[in-house]
Amino acid sequence: MGRWQPNARGRLEQAALELYRERGFEQTTAAQIAERAGLSERTFFRHYADKREVLFGGAQSLETAFADTLAAIPETAAPIDAMAATLESVAELFADRHEFARQRQAVIMANTELRERELIKLASITAALAATFRSRGLSAPAATLTAEAGSAVFRVGFERWVDQPGDRPLADFLRETLADLKAVTAGE
Amino acid sequence: MGRWQPNARGRLEQAALELYRERGFEQTTAAQIAERAGLSERTFFRHYADKREVLFGGAQSLETAFADTLAAIPETAAPIDAMAATLESVAELFADRHEFARQRQAVIMANTELRERELIKLASITAALAATFRSRGLSAPAATLTAEAGSAVFRVGFERWVDQPGDRPLADFLRETLADLKAVTAGE
Repeated sequence: MGRWQPNARGRLEQAALELYRERGFEQTTAAQIAERAGLSERTFFRHYADKREVLFGGAQSLETAFADTLAAIPETAAPIDAMAATLESVAELFADRHEFARQRQAVIMANTELRERELIKLASITAALAATFRSRGLSAPAATLTAEAGSAVFRVGFERWVDQPGDRPLADFLRETLADLKAVTAGE
Repeated sequence: MGRWQPNARGRLEQAALELYRERGFEQTTAAQIAERAGLSERTFFRHYADKREVLFGGAQSLETAFADTLAAIPETAAPIDAMAATLESVAELFADRHEFARQRQAVIMANTELRERELIKLASITAALAATFRSRGLSAPAATLTAEAGSAVFRVGFERWVDQPGDRPLADFLRETLADLKAVTAGE
């Protein structure tokens, strides 16, 4: 390992996002990202497997945050209420990330490979939530369906949050989207 | 184009499934699939881009069936009821496919690349349903959420159908799974 670089991951992430927006994802190389961040290519590959993964560096910690938050909610709560509380708590992680999330979303939506990687990330979070619900004693179909409902709310609510100026917190959009899902499934 | 081969696609599909189960997906080649089906490798590539796509030959027609069925349902129906009717109608396409679906599911679940391809197929169906709901005048969030709910019901209900002996039709499982989703979101 070379010498420690302060916040290398954050710098690479920011540099990658700038370059993807300027030149497009396909036209950008790991070497260019490293250069823009003022770091070596070796440092890039010490932190990320490839240029795609720079946009998914937070995926594992987001999944862990979802599962750990749900696991900590009292089991007396109805599953959908535990899901709602989990969504609102996880939303706090994005408190200062609106501009970053907006730029990242634009890059991802413009590229099939990145959209697919994002799908896989969300499916992995859904599976982690379903496993946590089962470990709380919920039956398999109900666990999966509650996790799927939570995941759909996160996906749709997140897009609504990203699409607006950003004065209102993500939690508001997730709460509204869950209310919409409840209305839709109730046939309203 | 060479001479016409009767039901070449069906024969390649069946041969691929047999080989994937016998040897595993990674260990099977397109040439071996063609040979097992009694066809040439050229014929294989006339029908499928690669050995993965053999398992997804029905994806486009399934998506079209979902969208066309939904489009034909009277707009007076509540969106979730239109979604339910669509699921039950599409389920009829699988009337004689239980054994095939069971084998296909086992192959897909055993391989990360195939699981990801299946996710992408389902996301594409979800997007087609959301677009159809919007063209029926539903607002964007409600359209997406109803499509996401329908897609989750299809995924979970399909797995429940595949996991049992197969005497009961897919439509039964989809109906029960939708009832479960309604109960879950209502906080029951």
